[in-house]
Amino acid sequence: MVPHLVTALDGPINELEQRILESTPVIERWFRLEWMEHTPPFYSSVDVRNAGFKLVPVDTNLFPDGWHNLTPEMLPLAVQAAMAAIEKICPEAKNLLLIPDNASDQEHLRNLLQLQRIFYQAGLTVRLGSLSNEVNEPTTVTLDGGEKVTLEPLVRTRRRLGLKHFDPCTILLNNDLSAGVPGIVEDLYEQYLLPPLHAGWGTRRKRNHFKAYEEVSKRFGKLLGMDPWLINPMFNSCGEVDFSQDQGLECLRSNTDALLGKIRRKYKEYGINEKPFVAIKADNGTGGLGVMMVRDAKDIDRISPAVRKRMATVQAGQSVGEVIIQEGVLTQERIENQVAEPVVYMMDRYVVGGFYRVNGEAGADENLNTPAARSVPLAFEQGAQLPQPGLQPGESLPNRFYMYGVIGRLAMLAASYELEATDPEAENYD
Amino acid sequence: MVPHLVTALDGPINELEQRILESTPVIERWFRLEWMEHTPPFYSSVDVRNAGFKLVPVDTNLFPDGWHNLTPEMLPLAVQAAMAAIEKICPEAKNLLLIPDNASDQEHLRNLLQLQRIFYQAGLTVRLGSLSNEVNEPTTVTLDGGEKVTLEPLVRTRRRLGLKHFDPCTILLNNDLSAGVPGIVEDLYEQYLLPPLHAGWGTRRKRNHFKAYEEVSKRFGKLLGMDPWLINPMFNSCGEVDFSQDQGLECLRSNTDALLGKIRRKYKEYGINEKPFVAIKADNGTGGLGVMMVRDAKDIDRISPAVRKRMATVQAGQSVGEVIIQEGVLTQERIENQVAEPVVYMMDRYVVGGFYRVNGEAGADENLNTPAARSVPLAFEQGAQLPQPGLQPGESLPNRFYMYGVIGRLAMLAASYELEATDPEAENYD
Repeated sequence: MVPHLVTALDGPINELEQRILESTPVIERWFRLEWMEHTPPFYSSVDVRNAGFKLVPVDTNLFPDGWHNLTPEMLPLAVQAAMAAIEKICPEAKNLLLIPDNASDQEHLRNLLQLQRIFYQAGLTVRLGSLSNEVNEPTTVTLDGGEKVTLEPLVRTRRRLGLKHFDPCTILLNNDLSAGVPGIVEDLYEQYLLPPLHAGWGTRRKRNHFKAYEEVSKRFGKLLGMDPWLINPMFNSCGEVDFSQDQGLECLRSNTDALLGKIRRKYKEYGINEKPFVAIKADNGTGGLGVMMVRDAKDIDRISPAVRKRMATVQAGQSVGEVIIQEGVLTQERIENQVAEPVVYMMDRYVVGGFYRVNGEAGADENLNTPAARSVPLAFEQGAQLPQPGLQPGESLPNRFYMYGVIGRLAMLAASYELEATDPEAENYD
Repeated sequence: MVPHLVTALDGPINELEQRILESTPVIERWFRLEWMEHTPPFYSSVDVRNAGFKLVPVDTNLFPDGWHNLTPEMLPLAVQAAMAAIEKICPEAKNLLLIPDNASDQEHLRNLLQLQRIFYQAGLTVRLGSLSNEVNEPTTVTLDGGEKVTLEPLVRTRRRLGLKHFDPCTILLNNDLSAGVPGIVEDLYEQYLLPPLHAGWGTRRKRNHFKAYEEVSKRFGKLLGMDPWLINPMFNSCGEVDFSQDQGLECLRSNTDALLGKIRRKYKEYGINEKPFVAIKADNGTGGLGVMMVRDAKDIDRISPAVRKRMATVQAGQSVGEVIIQEGVLTQERIENQVAEPVVYMMDRYVVGGFYRVNGEAGADENLNTPAARSVPLAFEQGAQLPQPGLQPGESLPNRFYMYGVIGRLAMLAASYELEATDPEAENYD
């Protein structure tokens, strides 16, 4: 279950939310049975967009950053979930090695400190081993608030990875491996390395994730007797688009056109008076850089060389890359008149918290994950706003965050399917 | 881990608390390993007394009432723990049958409603099956706040217990079976009945619990390098004390005298300037009725006939009963100048919340669990007051509730040992 939060959106409960709230025991049981068959990612965060008429995950992060944005009230949930996660993996463990991003900005360091705190309280000594070449000796950074974070150089032996005088049972990556897999973390057969290397953006493809999510949403739709489109962003993809030349843009044009047509038909079916749009993203990229919003296939020809270059650049420095074209979903959430989208945090199979990503510079149809974004922690909701079994539907006040937690977990389940399908070692078991 | 709470006691961190806070990862790992070998009770609550110089559990309830005293902020933790508990026992379960106490006062019904809410959100349909002869058809009670609780008559078939059109996988007792085990819940081999029947007060003996707790406290003391007396209330016991006559009081006198002597020596060792006392309790009793505080063995002869009669009465109507004599522990906690003791709530192996039992009519050396007691929910603590790994000991503010959660879990672990030792079916496995 999830912490219950005051949500920014103040509208009436729509039908989907009502359906989800009423189906709580059915939904929770369904997840319980799914997790008997599938392994949840160790941790994850999911960006959610609520258009009012549909609610979808737009990004599933398997190396979630931003843990420091969770409020103190949420920490006990994260600690309890971390306990459950560790117990399954390595109950005897004393030590956890956390491998951060090479970026050592204060935000990331605060995030690391929070993760350290969570796992310390769950019963592990946590130290930080840096992949950066610049960390040759233990390096302590003092944050603005006075807290200290120490990064240490990794020590690799033939079979194990650790730090000087620190031999962990589990190694947790908080580095999404966009730049590829460093040799130092490869071929570790005696220790648990989480998430697995093929969850890194060097290997991972958004189309695999959303293919798995489509399957999950169909099954969930069947469970609740609802159209899966209400929770599923449609997509298609193109391989080998060369943004530096016009070559390969033909696939982009025709697929964009086809997807816009599908969205238009769905909007017509539901009587939605919005202009369809699609988001064009690098299939292997992370974060929000290089996302283009397109309302007409012709717009593609009008993409400026600068944008194309940026689009190409994020694809690991290559100008040729795979591209995913995804149904654009508006966000109707607002905080102080700024566009907002909820981000759901999960540890093991539990929702442990979340916050709003707010962007004062972006529109409802734009990507919010840009440098202008800031985080607004979600506050705990009044007890009266929990869905209560004794009350008639309609009497209970909205509990939007429960719904967000369900969508977050559906995306997490899709990530679990995705990682099973893309596991390079899976063929050994077949 | 535990919710972090503002505690009533505003004193300096004593050495024990400091030791416990510093040892968090060691303690959590120790519990993790213990739960690999032992099964935690499904749920439990533990009354804790903090004397300033020592901190002990005084009562471990395996059929905890009072769940409605947990604040809404604690609910998500309880739900998450309930999910973990169910997953282990009966993951396919759709239905949970909850069996309440026969007392149908508003407090107990509110407690049931809260349990129903917790398990609903954890993914189960919960209905209440009453053992009372007065419930012959579904009976709905409307509480003062407007919520409704429905009690239904139990339906027993040869092999299963349920309600009309309601066949549960798991049956949860919220009735401590003080009056003995009703036949209707016996010989259920196809369903999970929790807690097991031998956890009921018809079978359970306090001396078995505190014997197990003594063992737990010794092992924990060794782990932390501290005197187990700091967390262990010493005790001894007498069988067959007849309170209606003077017969059998001799054992009580001599054991009280011996225990007072042991406490005196410990007080001397630690330089404690308090007058030792003992609590004399029925060995099989529940709640606080029939507890006598005694400062001198001679006091026993001065016990009034009325008190003796009450003492005898709670022992299932018999005037002869087994008695436990336990080291009296002062409570130094105060809320608005009233004596208070913390109560820790646990679900599966997780601390999920707690509250203060406050009693305006009792003294620091008296039993607080009387009709005059009221409950004060513990509020969530500031994030800054979490023990933080980056800070030096002494810099971090007290987090007393973490310590209470540790003591609560030690008592829960003792209950697990106790139930293993007293399991009537255990001999089959040996």
